[in-house]
Order: sequence, then C-alpha cells, then structure tokens
Amino acid sequence: MDKTGLKESIKFLASKKSKGMYLNDFFHTWQKKDDEIAAVFMVAEILRGMRENNISSKIFDSGLGISIFRDQSTRTRFSFASACNLLGLEVQDFDEGKSQIAHGETVKETANMISFMADVIGIRDDMYIGKGHAYMQEFSQSVCQGYLDGVLEQRPTLVNLQCDIDHPTQSMADALHLINHFGGAENLRGKKIAMTWAYSPSYGKPLSVPQGIIGLFSRFGMEVVLAHPKGYEVMKEVEEVAKLNSEKSGGVFIKTNSIKEAFKNADIVYPKSWAPFAAMEKRTNLYGKGDFDGIKALEKELLKQNASHKDWECTEKLMVTTKEGKALYMHCLPADISSVSCKEGEVSASVFDKYRTSLYKEASYKPYIIAAMIFLSKIKNPADKLMELLNKNSARIS
Amino acid sequence: MDKTGLKESIKFLASKKSKGMYLNDFFHTWQKKDDEIAAVFMVAEILRGMRENNISSKIFDSGLGISIFRDQSTRTRFSFASACNLLGLEVQDFDEGKSQIAHGETVKETANMISFMADVIGIRDDMYIGKGHAYMQEFSQSVCQGYLDGVLEQRPTLVNLQCDIDHPTQSMADALHLINHFGGAENLRGKKIAMTWAYSPSYGKPLSVPQGIIGLFSRFGMEVVLAHPKGYEVMKEVEEVAKLNSEKSGGVFIKTNSIKEAFKNADIVYPKSWAPFAAMEKRTNLYGKGDFDGIKALEKELLKQNASHKDWECTEKLMVTTKEGKALYMHCLPADISSVSCKEGEVSASVFDKYRTSLYKEASYKPYIIAAMIFLSKIKNPADKLMELLNKNSARIS
Amino acid sequence: MDKTGLKESIKFLASKKSKGMYLNDFFHTWQKKDDEIAAVFMVAEILRGMRENNISSKIFDSGLGISIFRDQSTRTRFSFASACNLLGLEVQDFDEGKSQIAHGETVKETANMISFMADVIGIRDDMYIGKGHAYMQEFSQSVCQGYLDGVLEQRPTLVNLQCDIDHPTQSMADALHLINHFGGAENLRGKKIAMTWAYSPSYGKPLSVPQGIIGLFSRFGMEVVLAHPKGYEVMKEVEEVAKLNSEKSGGVFIKTNSIKEAFKNADIVYPKSWAPFAAMEKRTNLYGKGDFDGIKALEKELLKQNASHKDWECTEKLMVTTKEGKALYMHCLPADISSVSCKEGEVSASVFDKYRTSLYKEASYKPYIIAAMIFLSKIKNPADKLMELLNKNSARIS
Repeated sequence: MDKTGLKESIKFLASKKSKGMYLNDFFHTWQKKDDEIAAVFMVAEILRGMRENNISSKIFDSGLGISIFRDQSTRTRFSFASACNLLGLEVQDFDEGKSQIAHGETVKETANMISFMADVIGIRDDMYIGKGHAYMQEFSQSVCQGYLDGVLEQRPTLVNLQCDIDHPTQSMADALHLINHFGGAENLRGKKIAMTWAYSPSYGKPLSVPQGIIGLFSRFGMEVVLAHPKGYEVMKEVEEVAKLNSEKSGGVFIKTNSIKEAFKNADIVYPKSWAPFAAMEKRTNLYGKGDFDGIKALEKELLKQNASHKDWECTEKLMVTTKEGKALYMHCLPADISSVSCKEGEVSASVFDKYRTSLYKEASYKPYIIAAMIFLSKIKNPADKLMELLNKNSARIS
Repeated sequence: MDKTGLKESIKFLASKKSKGMYLNDFFHTWQKKDDEIAAVFMVAEILRGMRENNISSKIFDSGLGISIFRDQSTRTRFSFASACNLLGLEVQDFDEGKSQIAHGETVKETANMISFMADVIGIRDDMYIGKGHAYMQEFSQSVCQGYLDGVLEQRPTLVNLQCDIDHPTQSMADALHLINHFGGAENLRGKKIAMTWAYSPSYGKPLSVPQGIIGLFSRFGMEVVLAHPKGYEVMKEVEEVAKLNSEKSGGVFIKTNSIKEAFKNADIVYPKSWAPFAAMEKRTNLYGKGDFDGIKALEKELLKQNASHKDWECTEKLMVTTKEGKALYMHCLPADISSVSCKEGEVSASVFDKYRTSLYKEASYKPYIIAAMIFLSKIKNPADKLMELLNKNSARIS
Repeated sequence: MDKTGLKESIKFLASKKSKGMYLNDFFHTWQKKDDEIAAVFMVAEILRGMRENNISSKIFDSGLGISIFRDQSTRTRFSFASACNLLGLEVQDFDEGKSQIAHGETVKETANMISFMADVIGIRDDMYIGKGHAYMQEFSQSVCQGYLDGVLEQRPTLVNLQCDIDHPTQSMADALHLINHFGGAENLRGKKIAMTWAYSPSYGKPLSVPQGIIGLFSRFGMEVVLAHPKGYEVMKEVEEVAKLNSEKSGGVFIKTNSIKEAFKNADIVYPKSWAPFAAMEKRTNLYGKGDFDGIKALEKELLKQNASHKDWECTEKLMVTTKEGKALYMHCLPADISSVSCKEGEVSASVFDKYRTSLYKEASYKPYIIAAMIFLSKIKNPADKLMELLNKNSARIS
C-alpha cells in the first residue's frame, strides 16, 4: 500500500464506529460490532502499510505489554511481541506455574502485582474447557478494580491470544488473509468455506480454532460448513453464534459428518484436528479431581477414536473436488503433515507444499491484527492518530 | 498529583541534598542520609504523578537494566522491569545457576561480562545469611573496577532488590504508603508500629523484611515495636541501627515476646513470618558443607518450632485491641492467609480482605521507589531534570 | 575517542567499500573483503566512541533482534542484547528445543514465524560439526524467500554468533583488541601469534575459536602459528583459508605439534582447548543414530586423550620464552584456570591474573563488533549516517 492508499484507508476507517473498543478488552469476535471488526482489519492493514513504507507507528514512549502463556507457544508469543514492539511497548513474559494462580483470590492479586506499568495484557489459556475465558474475565475485572482503586495508573486492556472458546487473533488474521486473497470483504459473500476436522495422531487439540472460524466467518455472508466425524462436536453456544450470524449476514451455516460433502465445490478449505468438546470437559473434570489414571485412560480412548478417522485427510484427491479444483487451503500452523511431521496426519505433503507461501502469508497478518486490537483499545480517535503518524512520517529505520 | 503539585514537589526536592546518591549504589537504607531518603520518596511521588498526567519520564535513549534473581520472584521482577521501562532502560534477566557464580574470581568476571551496556543492576539474593550483601558488594566493586579499567563505558549502579540484611525497596515502598496514608511523613511521629512475627507453615522466610522495617521506620520518630517468640531474633547489628535511629529521631525502639503487647494500641501492624537468624546461619553453614541430611533435620526442627506458635496470627480479635480497633494492616505479599492459602497462617481471611486494596496500593509504590533510586544514581541534578521533563511535557501515550 | 577523532574515523570509514555488506548476512570472515572487515572495525570503534561521548546511536525506532542459542550462553547472549539495544532493537529470545527444529521443512516455517518484525537474527549453533553453518544458511534462505513472497516486510539479516566453522564476532573482537593494543592494524604485520591447543579437563569444546582466529589473523601479514598435539587437527578447509590469506597478506601460516615452539618469541599467545575435528564428526554421527552408549564411550576416550597432554598449559615458565617474556595473553573466556576453576587447566592462575584486565577489555569489543555488523547490514551509507548521528548529538542519557 502506498501513501495515497494509506490516506484512503484512514478515511475509510474514520467512517467506522469503533468507540466501543476504546479502553476495552477483546475476548470473542462475536461480542464486537461489525464496524468494530471492520476497524480492526483496517487498522491492521494501515499499520502494515506504514511499516512497508518505513513509517513509525510508535504510540507508546514507554509501557509494558505483559504476556501470559499458560501453554507453550512460539507463533503467538512472537506475534504478540512483534505487535507490542511495533507500537512501542516492551514485552514482559509472565511464566508463573499453573499451580500458583489457582484460586480467585490469587488471580486478583497476581493481576495487580504484574500490571503496575502494563498497558496491555495478552493471555493464552486454551487447555481446559470452562477455564480459559473465565480466567481472562477475572483477570480483567481485577485490573479494572485496581485502576479504580488507584493501585494502577492505567487500565490495562486484555487481548485474548486463545482461550477455550475463541481464538480471535487467529480467526481475524485468517479472515484478513481471505479478504486480501479475494480482493475485498465484499467478495467473500457466497463463498463456501469448509471448516473440517482432520485426523491427527496427537490428542487434545483445542477447539478454539474451529469455533473462532465459524463464529467469525459466518458474519461475511458465506456458506460456512462445519464438518467432523460424529462425536467431535464443538460448543453448542458457538454453533448458535454461527447460526445467528449467518442469518443476519445473508449466509448459511451447515453441519455435516462428511469431509467429502464439505470439500465439494468449496472455495476455501480449513482441515484441522481438534478434540471432542465432551471429552475435553471430561478431561477438565479429571484434572480437577487429580485423577491421572482417568486422564491416561481417556487419552488412550481418544487416540483410538481419532485413529478410526484417518480418512479425514486433506489429499490431492479431495482438493480436486473443490471449486475448479483449486480451493484455498488454510491452516493455523503448525500442521500435521503426512509423512513429514508424522506418518499420517491432517494434510498430504504435496497439498501443503503447494500452499506453503500462502500459509505463511496467512500467519503474517497476526502481529498486525494484535497491534490493531491494542491500538483501538488505547487510542480514542484512531483515524486522527494514524493520519498524524502518516503526516509526521518519522522513519522506522532512520 | 496535578502539574502544580508536581512543580511544588520538584521545588521541595531541590532543597534536599542528594548528591551522595549520584553514581552510587543503594544497599541499606541506614547508609543513606535523611535528605537522601527524603529525595527517594519525593522522586518516586513525582515520577508517579508524571505518569498519572501522561508525561514521559524517559531519561535513557538506550541502555540496559540487568536483573539478577538468585531466588524465584514475581513481584520484585515486575517492579524492577516497570521501573526500568519507565526510565527508558530495557531489562535483561541474568539467570545463571547458583553454582556457576561460586568464588570471587568468577563474580568479578561475570559482573563485567554482563555489564557492557548496563546502566543499572538489580540484585535479589536473600537466601543465605552472610552471603547476599557480600555478593552485591563484590559485584559493585567489580564493575567499578571495570569502569576504571575502560572495560565498561559507564559505571553501572546497583539496586539491592533484597539481600540477607535489608530490603530497601520494600521498606521504602511501605514507608511511602504510610506517608500517603497518614498525610505526610511528619504525621508518622509518635505513631506505634508493630513489626511482629507471625506463624507460617513454611520455613526459612528471609529476615530482610523485619530488619528493613525496623531499620527504616525508626528514622521517623515512631514507636517501633519488634515482636517475636523467643528464638526468632533478628540480626543484632540491625537492632543496633534501630536503637540509634530511634534515639536520633526522638522515637523509641521496643522489643517484646508478646504479640498482644505489640498490637495493643498500635497504629500500624505488620505481622509476617521469618526464620530465626541463628537457624539461618546454621543452614548457610550446612549448605556450605553440603550436609543435606543436616538441612533436612534443621527444616523439620524449624517447622516444629514454628508450629508451637500458631497463636501468632493476625486475627480480628487482635485487631480490635489496636488503636481505636482500626490499625493499618501491612504486608509485603504474598501473605499466608488462614484457610485460604494455607490451613493456619499469618493472618485471618477476614482481616486480609478488609485491607486488600490498601495492600495492593502499598505494593504499587515499589516500581516508583526503584525508579527513584535509579534516577538519583544517574542524574546529577535531579530537580532540574524533572522540571525539564515536566516542561517538555512529552506524552507517554501519544 | 573525542569528537574530532570520531569525525576522522568516519572519514576513514567513507573510504572503505562496504556496500556488499548491505542487506547481507555475516557468516565467515573469509567471505568478506578486506575493506568490509576494516569497515566493521571502524564502525565498532565509532559506536564505542559515540557511547563514551554520550551520543545516541539509535537507528531503529522499533524492530526486533531475534537471538537463537542452540547452546547455553551468557557472554554472547549479553553481547548480542547490548548490541541490539545500542541501535534501538528489542531482543526476543527464541528458545525452542532442538527437537522441534529438526528437518528442513520446519526450519523454513520457524524462520518465517519468528521473523515478522525481525531486523536481525543472531544464531549460535556450534555443537555439531556439519550442522551449525548449514542451519544458518537454511534459515537465511528461508527469510529471504519470506521477504520476496511478501510474508515479511523486511529482510532480516543474520549474524553468526558462533557456528561449527567460524566464530566471527569473537575473532573480530579479539583482532580489534590487538589493533588497539599494538596501536593500529598496520603494526600487526610481522607479529607472531601462537594459537595453541591447551589442556582442559572438559570435553568437546568447539573448534570455531581456533578456526576463526587462523582464518582472520592470517589477513594481517602476521606469523600465525597453529599448535596442537597430534590428533587435534582442525578443519582442513579453514587451514586452506589461513594459507591463502597468509600468502596474500605477506604473512606466514605455520603448523606445529609443539607448544614450546609456538610460544617461542611469540608476540601474542592464545592457548585454548578444543576437541579433535574427527572426534566431533564421529560424535555428530553418533547423535544422529541416537547411539548414546557410543557417545559415552567416545567421551571417555577423549577425556583420556586430553589427559595425556596436561603439559599443554600456559605457565609462567612458557610465558618467559615469549618475545621479551611479555607476550599478550588472549582468551575468549571463560578459561579453565588451574587450581581455580579446575585442578589442572589451560592456564596457570598467576598468568591469568596478570592479564585479567586485558582479557575483560578484549571481551568488551564484542558488543560493538556485533553492533557494527548489524549497522553495516542495515544502513546503506554508513559513513553518512554516522556523521548525521554525530552532528545530531542526541544524548544517550539525557
């Protein structure tokens, strides 16, 4: 995007009502209005364009971005660090063991103790059904109260870097990739996307990606197909969101237990493994009881269950059945690639290789999506501020 | 604090003689003059006020703050990171295992090797009696020599983030909380503070907090009461400091073996567990000899000794006996809260809950105290520089 | 260096042709032209001089420096962090386990996923013969491709922080120390340097230091002597580099199996342990096969082999035989000091102590060498930019 394009984008941004995001958290995409979602996309594109043009988008002179990863992470960790750095925040990782933040009292305390100079908190907590989002909410309430009580000089806003329910930075990066691929959000209307389960030899993958995808993509008037074997249901509440969104947007939300049906004539396919919701609920309870024998038994059972669906693989043969045989293949990465990262997996090596560059590009939107979420939660008049930065034209590398 | 208040505070700061802090370390509060202590409080308040007013207090364009934690830490780690960030320093953690920095030669080498661009070094080393402060001194001497030898382009100054003797960033944050709570340092005169031991089911908590408190609070003309069961004595040298300080300041330093006596009519109570000095000395020697059976036996003995003093708990019943039944309850956090974080602990849940906000506020002064210590060790004319920053009025979030 | 000195140095820099370094990696010194090597030295000296004069050399408003250490590291980690900080980059450590970046496909993916806002990547990977440099090359190709594909907004350049072949940041810091010690690069001509093996009770030390030294110092018209017991040969390819360099520069490259011969009349001695190349190749293969019994057997054999050369120690007696008995002793640190860090080691305590300050000074050039490499890879007209920074005269500590 050149400077003229940047100016036009900023004008477009100014027409969107995003005030509700100011000093607010970002938990689930479906809690945000259409204008707010559009504003995130737009700010992300503008920040990326400014970086391409070597224009600084630093809005913080100092300040911390705290990252809390209650699960190992590379991609998300670096995306968050990149986003913070782009805006001028220094990242400080909080790596306290799970045990130390156990009960409510302590979340309240920890939240305040690590947030003294925190402008933004990024949390990834996707392992336990019923826990991740609840933890984020409690964290948010704690720092809001800390701000009101004068403990904190600012209200740190939260960015959900993946919870048990939604993965908004992933789904929005994915969507922005689609928007660019198809030349505009309006071109997504009527397109068929197959969000399908795929076989993996590993167990317990989070549900937040499929849930995030159907919860967001159903807003764009698309034909959103959720496909999985029986027993791999996702959360009912999110299916409801997808249904309602589809009705409102003029799209359609379809469920099926056939990967073939899902791929047939699809414009976009997103084959990815996940664990059954019911099993994850069961696991959370077993952990709660400290029943490790039960967990082992459950794991064995789930791996066996997975193994009976090895035919759920994104192969060349299946790809041929998509729209003109050339659907866009998507994945949040890392993928389980058959005969590369595992014997049998989510996708065949030849399909994956064909889309490698596209997949990296898809991932590359995430830092900008996160930065946009931070930007909109911290800057009252985002369009004005971006125009100011553009006119200032301060070099990132001088 | 508004801008007028900030200006007045800076003028007040200008009247304090704090030159001795320039290019100097901060080890123990009792090594500092009254004016220097006052200057730290004042700079901390001004930096906090500037942040509240969105005014940048960045004095470093680049530079590193090195943190060395020879013990796990969350609160202090984030406080140090916040302080560095506020002033423009990037934190770099040094996490070398304890074994690798064993003898003098190596301290000298490590100190220089990690300090190439270090403006400040924050060290926490509180575990072993007779070791922590000695280590910090050797570190300081090493980098001073490195600076004189042309190895380092600057002399990194040290901030003691807790040693075996003092915990100045804690005691000064606590004191600043008191000053604000009672509306000025002059209002502390004559107030009674009970620094008392309290029961904890854990073992070997450092002595630096009670020592830091009696070593500092005795400067303010207060009635400083140190209470503990027999056998839980703190370092004699620090008791001497408290005595001398009290005499000089017109206060009084009292020791007792009764928590009831300590609480009676107290304005402030600070009930907190610690290990007996003699036992900690013994432990250090056992570690030195590698006598792990001896350590286990000592641990068992100490836990048993602790258990015979479970009545040393800060309860509602005891709180009623304080001045008008409403003494200010203080703690460095995290506290052992009875029936919350442990079965029986330092404080009852209802007392803790009542003071929760106050406790968080108390902790929130620490980043500013650390920043003030750094500021005064790096800026020759602190009042002039602060006035310059205030007049410049550069936005922290633009 | 004062400001007049800085201006002269910048003018000298302007006369060097270093364009080839722009947007390029730094793998081995022998891939660089003489002018490029000279430019690195000069930029390092200028950056150091600017810091001494409290002049900011920040060229990045934001951006990340990614460090990848596939081996524990303190000195290099802090040197890289210091270099990045000096120029305005924030360091982000990538600590993924070795297993996760196993095969080509994944290097490509990881390289892109962690480089979204990366301006520079520093990699240390020296453990396995035939692996480290290959990994760096693959990483570089991956991010170049990512840049061309529009995944990355910039091309991150690589700095080799030690591979299996060369250790350019070490050898160049060592060389800059020599240049300053002898008052100019031209004064190195004809000087004798003894790069000799020395006994260590530990096993498997990398070859990159001796290889780096003979590969670089042979450019300066010196008498470069490589000494080691039979069986401790270094890579043939690097010996070839040293031979060719020596011929070109008017120096001489000599091999010997006698430490006495090496020390005799030497101006500089660099006694340091390393593992035999052939044994390291064997070890890499054993690791590849997962033959841990074989590795243990090899380790035992190598320690035994080492032990038969305990007379290869840098003693006072040997030092007396050097030029006027006062050769400059060098080491990359940490050294195995006899009766200090081990019973018998590379150097006697009295020799080491005499050169301690010199050794620290030697190490202190490394951050500036790294910063210079980054600077030259990112700034098209380095002399112009440095003059601009000098004239701007922005304070590092204001």
